[in-house]
Amino acid sequence: MDIVSQNRSFGGVQAVYRHPSNTCGCEMTFAAYLPPQSRSGPVPVLWYLSGLSCTHENAMTRGGFQEHAARHGLAVIFPDTSPRGESVADDPDDDLGQGAGFYLNATRDPWARNFRMYDYILHELRSLVLEHLPVADRHGITGHSMGGHGALTLALRNSEMFESVSAFAPIANPTRSDWGRKQLSAYLGDDESAWSHHDSTLLLEELGWKSDILVDQGADDQFLDLLRPEALADTMARRRQPGRVRLQRGYDHSYYFVNTFACDHVAWHAERLN
Amino acid sequence: MDIVSQNRSFGGVQAVYRHPSNTCGCEMTFAAYLPPQSRSGPVPVLWYLSGLSCTHENAMTRGGFQEHAARHGLAVIFPDTSPRGESVADDPDDDLGQGAGFYLNATRDPWARNFRMYDYILHELRSLVLEHLPVADRHGITGHSMGGHGALTLALRNSEMFESVSAFAPIANPTRSDWGRKQLSAYLGDDESAWSHHDSTLLLEELGWKSDILVDQGADDQFLDLLRPEALADTMARRRQPGRVRLQRGYDHSYYFVNTFACDHVAWHAERLN
Repeated sequence: MDIVSQNRSFGGVQAVYRHPSNTCGCEMTFAAYLPPQSRSGPVPVLWYLSGLSCTHENAMTRGGFQEHAARHGLAVIFPDTSPRGESVADDPDDDLGQGAGFYLNATRDPWARNFRMYDYILHELRSLVLEHLPVADRHGITGHSMGGHGALTLALRNSEMFESVSAFAPIANPTRSDWGRKQLSAYLGDDESAWSHHDSTLLLEELGWKSDILVDQGADDQFLDLLRPEALADTMARRRQPGRVRLQRGYDHSYYFVNTFACDHVAWHAERLN
Repeated sequence: MDIVSQNRSFGGVQAVYRHPSNTCGCEMTFAAYLPPQSRSGPVPVLWYLSGLSCTHENAMTRGGFQEHAARHGLAVIFPDTSPRGESVADDPDDDLGQGAGFYLNATRDPWARNFRMYDYILHELRSLVLEHLPVADRHGITGHSMGGHGALTLALRNSEMFESVSAFAPIANPTRSDWGRKQLSAYLGDDESAWSHHDSTLLLEELGWKSDILVDQGADDQFLDLLRPEALADTMARRRQPGRVRLQRGYDHSYYFVNTFACDHVAWHAERLN
């Protein structure tokens, strides 16, 4: 694991690492914030998955998570959103490929060879982080937009691997949205039965969640029709799933929204992880 | 004044505006954070001046000022660092020109026509902000690196216009630094007597400051030799100038440093402005 950069931040360290990934078949970059508490012993991990077109960097520089993570003693891992490189397939005009991994294992060409973000995050990167960083094997997960979709689907399908889950403006019902159908079809093929494992509304209906769930959604989000928070909220209500879907008046889809509510999400995870 | 963008942030609004500038002879862009308190009445203004190569955007997205400004009820204005455009002179290889205005009025060609950031911020932008935004005529000023130099020199020379001044890793003694001598010579000519109005160490020696001063400086800043905080600290000590120069162990010159101490600076200004 190579160190790309290390900067002191709120008494801890904001680091960026690069490593060869067997799962993705390319070099991968991720960021890790290590709070001051990690110098005296292992700290729990909050995973933050980013949205379409983002890298490890957007939330690291614009999310404001470091301040809250330092207060609560959590490490925060910011993975990239896809494999990258000249030899990696891409189709940027269609929100497919690099920057748009959708946190699944692709089964169709040309994507199947590299686009395995589901396995990468759950297994390869998790092992790497546990081995090399001063963290405890105790995890929460959150994310924004496509990353909110990733956080919910990874947690719901692997409840033994995460103690807590939340999301910012998640793509909540991708099997019914243009932010989803196109990508699920390209990555997984046209048999829609394979898609349901990647739709948090359908997964919640089927599996529920062992604890409570926090979802924040801007009420003035310009992508509200693509995100379909009402589908997730409806399923939560019908299933009597503990949790909160908060529609935040006046907020849009930007990092200003994430930044504003980062404090609440970090505190929520800390309460469940510490 | 055209609105470029508006995003809800911490209950207030982060806006970006564009306007034709008579002073700079080009279109200028700036950002303004308006806290929730500004809906019920005018709030004091904190000016944040950015460093070399920055625009209005860097501190707006990476500084984390909105959270603290919302808590304390301050507006924050983020001006650009220079005039810009195809017809504006530039010399990026030499840290001169666009992105490197140094908060002075240039007197030498080809800079004299547009590079008037001193007048632009003190007069044109200040008037525009007072006329169009819900702010009170009560001002504090801060900034980072070249912007810390700008904050200190503008305040020291115009103590009737600012109630409070602070700086993050300012270029503290540019007449004795390669971050300064080249630019002062290009913009103002080789007569060094004209430079002293743009050196906060020399200005503090000559004029003092009516109140106290807060300066934060990373002790591991990679540009420490160019910034010369010891010159400013020495002058403060000899002049018995109230204030603090804090050398922060482990911090570098990046926005992670600014972000970490933004909280203290906003609180410092709020105490003196409210």
